[in-house]
Amino acid sequence: MNLVLLSRGDLDSDAVAHVEGERARHLREVLKVTPGQSVRVGLIDGPPGVGIVVATSADRISLRCSFAGELLARPAVDLLLAVPRPKVLRRLWAQIAAIGVGRIILTNAARVERPYFDTHWLDHATYEPLLIEGLQQARDTWMPMVSVHRQFRILIEDELDKLCPTGLRLVGHPAAAPSIAGAVAGLEHDRVLLAIGPEGGWNDFEIACLAARGFVVASMGPRTLRTDTACVAALALLHDALEHRPAALHH
Amino acid sequence: MNLVLLSRGDLDSDAVAHVEGERARHLREVLKVTPGQSVRVGLIDGPPGVGIVVATSADRISLRCSFAGELLARPAVDLLLAVPRPKVLRRLWAQIAAIGVGRIILTNAARVERPYFDTHWLDHATYEPLLIEGLQQARDTWMPMVSVHRQFRILIEDELDKLCPTGLRLVGHPAAAPSIAGAVAGLEHDRVLLAIGPEGGWNDFEIACLAARGFVVASMGPRTLRTDTACVAALALLHDALEHRPAALHH
Repeated sequence: MNLVLLSRGDLDSDAVAHVEGERARHLREVLKVTPGQSVRVGLIDGPPGVGIVVATSADRISLRCSFAGELLARPAVDLLLAVPRPKVLRRLWAQIAAIGVGRIILTNAARVERPYFDTHWLDHATYEPLLIEGLQQARDTWMPMVSVHRQFRILIEDELDKLCPTGLRLVGHPAAAPSIAGAVAGLEHDRVLLAIGPEGGWNDFEIACLAARGFVVASMGPRTLRTDTACVAALALLHDALEHRPAALHH
Repeated sequence: MNLVLLSRGDLDSDAVAHVEGERARHLREVLKVTPGQSVRVGLIDGPPGVGIVVATSADRISLRCSFAGELLARPAVDLLLAVPRPKVLRRLWAQIAAIGVGRIILTNAARVERPYFDTHWLDHATYEPLLIEGLQQARDTWMPMVSVHRQFRILIEDELDKLCPTGLRLVGHPAAAPSIAGAVAGLEHDRVLLAIGPEGGWNDFEIACLAARGFVVASMGPRTLRTDTACVAALALLHDALEHRPAALHH
């Protein structure tokens, strides 16, 4: 934990946050904080800051917080992901949040098995702590916006333009195609939406449907990777490609 | 499983392999193979090929194999990794193998906790199935060479030149530095050895020791990532950077 992420509700009228549970344990046992010490804090969807430890007890740590840090930019990458196996989804939440995405759009697809939608790893209460874990690891404060869509076609044709009105749209595909960096290079978009399919890939209808809504095929490299590995690899390549475009295009 | 990986010992004198256990279950229940059908196979550290199903039973599938495929190049990237927490190490084996490394050198470091060396995830018998799982996912046949080193300084000063005699050496560091792609661009090395430190980073002695043996600092990007996420992200960037160097330098 490289930052303690707080919501406005965690703060009392004196800007003191009372941290409990796993985060209090981590502060006490790993970071070994004592009164007077300062730790990095951050406000969800807000700026980072500093928290001074004002009290510690067996089960809570109180931090007087000020949020004078510079608000980071919301990650410029969004992810459209066919719902993976529950075990893979569980592993993905914290990693996706750590590597940085603005929005996570989970969708059905022909090769998504129906029971995958029954997992509690799609419940907000279950995945939110994992997102927070990832943000705290990466010192980010932007909580990814998450939505779950059971009808692929309705999502792509009717809803996607509202969720992601602007930006480059890429769909990762094993077929020969430009690399992710090649697809991003020289483009003036300020956001990229990356679609990653199910194990077994998108089917032809889905690829056509995505292409009709502006998605461009980009190569994920010569190796077929498991969804979690593919997501981390593709998001890393995408962030790196956006980072190293000409300076005039940065946001 | 996108390829059934076999060792020479799996093949009888008629080049028939009798596959049992989890792989037989996967062939029967997921791929639903029947006699006469062909599946992708590969020989560990050898070429890929085709296996014709010649018999199926409740617990074994027999495949008559021919290995006429083109031998892929051994991955051009090696990984020097400070032993991570057992839970993270367990998750890493298959992902590292899938993304492709020639060699995995696991090392102690000041910020590696001693109990990390007691885990069975460092035992060959425990991690080998995970490496095979990753190779089968990515359709690779090159088994990463693995070694575990309890003394950092002896490894770096006395052993590393034998393990990795040639190639560029990079150490991922949060400090300002060229990016991984920047460090690789234009260099004529045919291999890259990437060092990834423990949670909390290498200490000053370790960085100096690595620098003295030719390691160049490369930026892992602005975010502090968990070791497993950092490994996948850095290896993806490195493979991509090597892949997109001028054609004359490819091997």
